[in-house]
Amino acid sequence: MKIIMSIEEMQNSANRLRAAGKKIGFVPTMGFLHQGHLSLLEEAKTRSDIVVMSIYVNPTQFAPNEDFEAYPRDTERDCKLASQHGCDIVFIPESDQIYPEPYLTYVEVEKMTRILCGASRPAHFRGVTTIVAKLFNIVKPQLAVFGQKDYQQALVIQQMTRDLNFDVEIVIAPIVRESDGLAMSSRNSYLSPDERQQALVLNRSLLMAKQEILSGERDAESLKRKIRANIRQKPAAEIDYVEIVDARNLDPVKDIQHNVLIALAAKFGKTRLIDNIIVDVEKLI
Amino acid sequence: MKIIMSIEEMQNSANRLRAAGKKIGFVPTMGFLHQGHLSLLEEAKTRSDIVVMSIYVNPTQFAPNEDFEAYPRDTERDCKLASQHGCDIVFIPESDQIYPEPYLTYVEVEKMTRILCGASRPAHFRGVTTIVAKLFNIVKPQLAVFGQKDYQQALVIQQMTRDLNFDVEIVIAPIVRESDGLAMSSRNSYLSPDERQQALVLNRSLLMAKQEILSGERDAESLKRKIRANIRQKPAAEIDYVEIVDARNLDPVKDIQHNVLIALAAKFGKTRLIDNIIVDVEKLI
Repeated sequence: MKIIMSIEEMQNSANRLRAAGKKIGFVPTMGFLHQGHLSLLEEAKTRSDIVVMSIYVNPTQFAPNEDFEAYPRDTERDCKLASQHGCDIVFIPESDQIYPEPYLTYVEVEKMTRILCGASRPAHFRGVTTIVAKLFNIVKPQLAVFGQKDYQQALVIQQMTRDLNFDVEIVIAPIVRESDGLAMSSRNSYLSPDERQQALVLNRSLLMAKQEILSGERDAESLKRKIRANIRQKPAAEIDYVEIVDARNLDPVKDIQHNVLIALAAKFGKTRLIDNIIVDVEKLI
Repeated sequence: MKIIMSIEEMQNSANRLRAAGKKIGFVPTMGFLHQGHLSLLEEAKTRSDIVVMSIYVNPTQFAPNEDFEAYPRDTERDCKLASQHGCDIVFIPESDQIYPEPYLTYVEVEKMTRILCGASRPAHFRGVTTIVAKLFNIVKPQLAVFGQKDYQQALVIQQMTRDLNFDVEIVIAPIVRESDGLAMSSRNSYLSPDERQQALVLNRSLLMAKQEILSGERDAESLKRKIRANIRQKPAAEIDYVEIVDARNLDPVKDIQHNVLIALAAKFGKTRLIDNIIVDVEKLI
């Protein structure tokens, strides 16, 4: 496995690989890899000749009060894990290369970035779409894999890719969970043992909600109330949002029909966690 | 010369050309070609194997009160001229393909788009950078040529290209003028004979300004006053702006040192014209 730190070298490698007819699959990450990331690498491997993974904790997607500085980092371990899971090139750029002064250009997706996580993190998705557009131009992949855990992010990137005519196929891979159901996240490392235990309520509430739909619940407001009540039983939980939206475009949903996304975010102590489930009503019946 | 109307076909052609080791030079236009455009094609031809020109009157760079509907169009003549000046592929996309519903993504360059033409046309450059980013992803050029006539546009695109890591070299080609000095523009076709005669004051004021600098004028405010007074002698002229800025980054200039851009915009009747000159003080001395 090759490690590349320079943008120019990454672009030259990508040019050479494409000229040789290779299909490049790309997995952008912020590092501190867990099984979720590794499943994305494996997904990319089955669909391409060369897998490139980037590690970059992107400052523009963090607000000043968020955890950019504290975000966990372990590049050496990341590289070892990546090489064991089919990665061919790890791209690890430096911030002064990625945002050289004066840096002035941003890519923004409207409307679908104002809701869910975008409501409480107003500049977050602008940072995400900007860095992903940059990485697409540096890594030049034909395919990129994102995790369903950040479902809104994956859909926003899909929209950007379509709108800006990036010639890149976007694949969304399933959420990977710990054995007790907690969705894997680099931020889980922030949780105290007690917070971690209480955080299981997120996945359990989503499973409860799916069961409610299976039992005939079709009113989104009523179901959201039930989910909120469930989460509030945990004293450490502070709900950011619980939403039910159309899984195709994140449009709000009143009556639960077709394919819905139930998405939620909550803080446990200082740690903000997200989770979601997609429920296809027609397949349940 | 080949004419391509479909985005997918253009991307496939670009992929094939690049796989065959060809260098693609790109000239984006809004059509209604004049000698200025043709000089861009010839510049692209000397620097690349295959020249692609796009014709697309981009609605997102026009404000509702501007001349999108009236903008002159003559695609048949454009194709004939392009084929006579080294163009290999003309790309003519349809608007419903370029901005399919729901269209949500925009590329924006901050700061340098708020001044000069950006001050009176606030959404203009957002439209320009968005369409150029899209066209770069569709045409996949290694090189793109823009005219100095729209110098701010060329610099904004250069900044976007650098910031978003597009692997594209941006070339700025000189202004082409009519024999009497009027800068060539598709919008010159709007002018009445009398307005056209009065519009010569723009180029003449720029040449006068250069002469003033040669004679020792170094105060930007004083020089701008002289230029404005000169233009105001023409009764049809309505000045939008007269500015003197750093030619490298469009930063404001008080003392005229190094390389300055003198840029201006004025209306003659209903027609808004722009013109500029770059004066390298060190080379004058």
